[in-house]
Amino acid sequence: MDILNEVRVFAPATVANVAVGFDILGFAIHGPGDEVVLRRVQTPGLRISTITGTGEKQLPLAAERNTAGYAALSLLEHLGKSDLGLEMEIHKKMPFGSGLGSSAASAAAGVFAANAILGSPLPKEELLPFAVAGEEIADGAYHADNVGPSLLGGILFIRDNQSLDVRTLPVPEELHAAVVYPHVEILTKDAREVLSDQLSLHQHIEQNGNLGALLIGFYESDYDLISRSLLDVIIEPQRSQLIPHFADVKKAALENGALGASISGAGPSVFALCKGPANAKIVAEKMQQIFQQNGIACNAYASPINTVGAIQM
Amino acid sequence: MDILNEVRVFAPATVANVAVGFDILGFAIHGPGDEVVLRRVQTPGLRISTITGTGEKQLPLAAERNTAGYAALSLLEHLGKSDLGLEMEIHKKMPFGSGLGSSAASAAAGVFAANAILGSPLPKEELLPFAVAGEEIADGAYHADNVGPSLLGGILFIRDNQSLDVRTLPVPEELHAAVVYPHVEILTKDAREVLSDQLSLHQHIEQNGNLGALLIGFYESDYDLISRSLLDVIIEPQRSQLIPHFADVKKAALENGALGASISGAGPSVFALCKGPANAKIVAEKMQQIFQQNGIACNAYASPINTVGAIQM
Repeated sequence: MDILNEVRVFAPATVANVAVGFDILGFAIHGPGDEVVLRRVQTPGLRISTITGTGEKQLPLAAERNTAGYAALSLLEHLGKSDLGLEMEIHKKMPFGSGLGSSAASAAAGVFAANAILGSPLPKEELLPFAVAGEEIADGAYHADNVGPSLLGGILFIRDNQSLDVRTLPVPEELHAAVVYPHVEILTKDAREVLSDQLSLHQHIEQNGNLGALLIGFYESDYDLISRSLLDVIIEPQRSQLIPHFADVKKAALENGALGASISGAGPSVFALCKGPANAKIVAEKMQQIFQQNGIACNAYASPINTVGAIQM
Repeated sequence: MDILNEVRVFAPATVANVAVGFDILGFAIHGPGDEVVLRRVQTPGLRISTITGTGEKQLPLAAERNTAGYAALSLLEHLGKSDLGLEMEIHKKMPFGSGLGSSAASAAAGVFAANAILGSPLPKEELLPFAVAGEEIADGAYHADNVGPSLLGGILFIRDNQSLDVRTLPVPEELHAAVVYPHVEILTKDAREVLSDQLSLHQHIEQNGNLGALLIGFYESDYDLISRSLLDVIIEPQRSQLIPHFADVKKAALENGALGASISGAGPSVFALCKGPANAKIVAEKMQQIFQQNGIACNAYASPINTVGAIQM
């Protein structure tokens, strides 16, 4: 496999948890995401030359402290190529702190670019541990519910995050997502702290029933079953208090035909699953309107499930 | 549809919970079960004439207090046929209090027989509420994890027991069960009381991951994934203390190639899932040996998943 001179890759934004799969379910969307350019240079080692699209925030330029950089370095080291001279550009094309997997998209793009410039010696699936390690730099947790679908695309189910025992699920043909990102800040720390460490056996059984039925809905393309299953009785009731106007936004989604709606990742973004592109567009607009009517600026996205994941451009 | 003079039906024993699907997952096996004979008589109303196979125990002969009788009566009433003259025989061909769904098999056989003698006006799926109502007479709980698979066959997933939102899952071709029933008594009351009403979020996530992966394993016929998923971190650690030598019996199953093993329903029966009939036979024998070596009499069954459920003989 030939080492290329330059590659440009993109890894998409993702919705983790998906109402009933806390820490173990996520899917990718089209539109927002991270672009990473990697090119050969003379000087050995990986250097990050440029980071754009971060607005007022700053991301570390030191490769080993940067999510995309660390993911790439982990792979290069694994392949015995850490002395290769490489320059990395990171172009963030999605919001930070949105609950849409911003650091996960960086990690996925970083490792995918590093593999691509080497002529793709590893299949995509084998890049996952390096991508997860990259995201761990950013948020301290070793989990694949964002980085997995950003890298691999589709709807990803994770049996176990430690061993990265994951499966890509079938995507019903008309399944679309509506996602809105209200410009409010939720600290990951607060999103974790608001969660009780305990739940009742009854809640567990109810959530289990809905999780299993959601997976069956994906396998059977049963939109009604998907709709009945998108009912989070554990996380959403606790975390939704951190998102202003959440109840009204969710109500707007359901009243306008969404199959279901809940919090994307730790929030503040809200997602809905919809049948068909037209409905996803309407639902995204209606959810956005609620935030805007309450004086909160808001990005809205409507997209089919992105079954591609990280891609060379 | 013609009313028949006599029908003879059989409904099979079942394994509920299946390690990671507490209250929401069950499957049927071949072999043990309940036989119900229903015949037309002159005198209006349903009378139970004979109950055999109950050993030292007695089941109520009054139809409205008998599981099979009540299930049949519920259907007859629903169909406006409660004045039909019917005589019922119940032949129990499975152990009581075994954790193998004895009362569920009665309920399934009762309602299936009543529908059959009327010329099967309702499809099987629509008999489920009456069967669940019948079992409720016996154990006071409205749930379908035994009665569902006994009636419908296969592996049954229940999104919600109240609304009986159920789905029959695909059965991998080589999936077999080994089941052993040690002759020890566990009171349903004790089996319920030993369970904590609370669990940790971490346990919930782990169990959720295994439940989802088990369903994926069934859909994908992925025996390795099924094996990794049969890991109950919530119920089994609490209930296994009620089953003498459980740890050794489970160990014997796993050491002899079972995909996984856990408690059937509330116990004391122990089940294992296996790949292929030969392995299921060996695993059933080895599990039985452990109980017998410890002076506990024990029935053993090895069977493919019973995809038929209740059947006219």
